[in-house]
Formats: sequence, structure tokens, C-alpha cells
Amino acid sequence: MQLMRIVSSASLRTATEKRTLGMEHFKKLMSPDFMRRAIALAMQNVQSGSGGPFAALVAKDGRIVAEGSNRVTLTNDPTAHAEIVAIRGACAELNGFQLTGCDLYTTCEPCPMCLGAIYWARPAHVFYAGTAADAAAAGFDDAFIYDELKRAPVERRIPMTQVLRDEALAIFSAWRSQANKMPY
Amino acid sequence: MQLMRIVSSASLRTATEKRTLGMEHFKKLMSPDFMRRAIALAMQNVQSGSGGPFAALVAKDGRIVAEGSNRVTLTNDPTAHAEIVAIRGACAELNGFQLTGCDLYTTCEPCPMCLGAIYWARPAHVFYAGTAADAAAAGFDDAFIYDELKRAPVERRIPMTQVLRDEALAIFSAWRSQANKMPY
Repeated sequence: MQLMRIVSSASLRTATEKRTLGMEHFKKLMSPDFMRRAIALAMQNVQSGSGGPFAALVAKDGRIVAEGSNRVTLTNDPTAHAEIVAIRGACAELNGFQLTGCDLYTTCEPCPMCLGAIYWARPAHVFYAGTAADAAAAGFDDAFIYDELKRAPVERRIPMTQVLRDEALAIFSAWRSQANKMPY
Repeated sequence: MQLMRIVSSASLRTATEKRTLGMEHFKKLMSPDFMRRAIALAMQNVQSGSGGPFAALVAKDGRIVAEGSNRVTLTNDPTAHAEIVAIRGACAELNGFQLTGCDLYTTCEPCPMCLGAIYWARPAHVFYAGTAADAAAAGFDDAFIYDELKRAPVERRIPMTQVLRDEALAIFSAWRSQANKMPY
């Protein structure tokens, strides 16, 4: 009823109200079973000592396409966050590099690396359970990465220095004139 | 000489001057040979039709530990950017999940996903050749991802909705009380 009232009165649509409406709409598209499955996977990952307290899965048309748990320490791969593992698995399963029409369920708000991966993979929706603040309280604080992204490259904690740009431009020229390239 | 003058006069150290000093310092740590190797790899990647116009490598103590070229379309992996491939390879080679004391050479300014991966892998320096603007001009525009990171999750192009937080908190409690965990 509250929802209807807001919809029918455009003048009441403040940013906060629109946000609430959006959340209510998207929550209806979420499968609690899939999120509970991801939560169980994350719990299992912790209890088995396999890695960090995170898991994710990719679902499409009501079925799970691929699952992933954090594998950073187990596989010596700092990029093996749950979302990355699930995205890679789902792309392999679906035989493509895009997750069109898929939903990503993750037990925690994605870090900047995983957010970037999500935009490149392009699932339809992302559902997450714990917040970045919850993760930070457990020792996984990615707030500093967001701060770093805002800084000039050379002023970052890991300094990023531009060199030999002129020589690299030939690569892009070659790409532009490549006849049989596969855009992505 | 110009550099010395700035160093000797603190009052002249504007933000721009400090930035210039930093760049000059870091440029001296860069190996042109390694960057040229990365550029050659990227060129080869384009010309062989293997993937996008990007390559990267990780170097430590004067030698190349691992190389990577963009493999998104070839391996159906949207996360297989050159930097991610090189970081994963270097960690496997070094048998660890941190790139302490390593330098990352990449033919282009890293996208947000790769920047995130760099912060998790923690190399000492990053050297890049082409800029994000150069990549955008060739059809690889990641500016929209930076814009998306600034938005509230539910207002992003790929909507991100929080659900079942209470149930997920148990995972973090389990992590906190896990005696044999490996922090990362």
C-alpha cells in the first residue's frame, strides 16, 4: 500500500523513496534458496579451512550455473575471490564471456576488483548479503582501494607511473586495423 | 638541475611539482626492456587474433616472473585481462598470494578490476604505457565503471540489492572464531 502511494505520486519521489522502490522491486527477483546456498558454501569454506568467509554463485533461468568460494590462500591466487571464481566458472559452463540474463548471488558486497569483473561479465542483477562494513569488521577492509582509485596514479600507495606511451600507441593502431578481431 | 632546485626549496613544492618529482623518481626504477617486451606481447596478441591489445608482465630482481596477454575472448573469461593473467601466473610461479618486491609492467593503465587485483596482490610498483583515454579511443572505455562505483548499489546499471544480511553474519562470526585460519 505504501508502495502504491509512492508510485502514484510523482511529487513524493525523493531520491530515498526511489531507492526504496528500486530495492523492493529487485528483492522480488531474488531467490532466498540461492542466497542460502551461497551462505552455506561460505560457511563450509571457513569451517574446512579452505579460505575466506565468502562464497558466490551464478544462476540463470532458475538453476545454478556455477558456484565459487574464496580460494585466495588455497590456490595462491589473490584474484580468486568468490565472485571471480563463480563468474569464471559460469562463463566456462555457458561457453561465453558474458553472463547475459544471469544473476550473481554473493554473500558479501563485492570489492572493487569484483565490481569491475561484474561490469565486464554483465549479469542482469547482483544480490549480496553482508555489507562492506560487515566484511571490514571481520578484517577485510577494501575501503582503502576506493580511496586509492580517486588518487592520481603516481600518488597511490602502490605508485603507478606512465612510461613509453608513444611506443604503446602502435598496439592500438594495430587493433583498429585488424580485420578479424573479436570485440568484447 | 630543475629537479634539484625543487628539492632544495620546500616552498616551491606545489602538488604538481611533488607529482612531477614522484614520477621522475619512479621512472628511474623502470626497465624499458621489460615494457618493450610487454608491448611486443600485446602486438603479437592482436596480430595472432588471440585477444585484445593488452599485455602485462611481473618482474622481480631483474627477471621476468610471468607474462600475460588479454585472453577474454580466447578463453571465454571476462576476468582474463592481461594484468590478471600476469598476476595469477606470477603468484603461481612464486608460490604465494602476494607479489612483494615485484613490479608490474602493463601496456595500458589498468581498469578498476585490475586495479583492485593489484591492491590485493601488492606489487611494489606499477608501470603502464597507454592511458585509459588511449584505450577508450580504441573502444575499451572503463570510465563508466568508475562512475558506477560512486553510485549507491541499487542505483547502478547492474542493480545490486542487499538481502538476508542477518543470515550472512554467521559466516563472519565463524571466521572470527576459526582458530586455524590463514589471514590474507
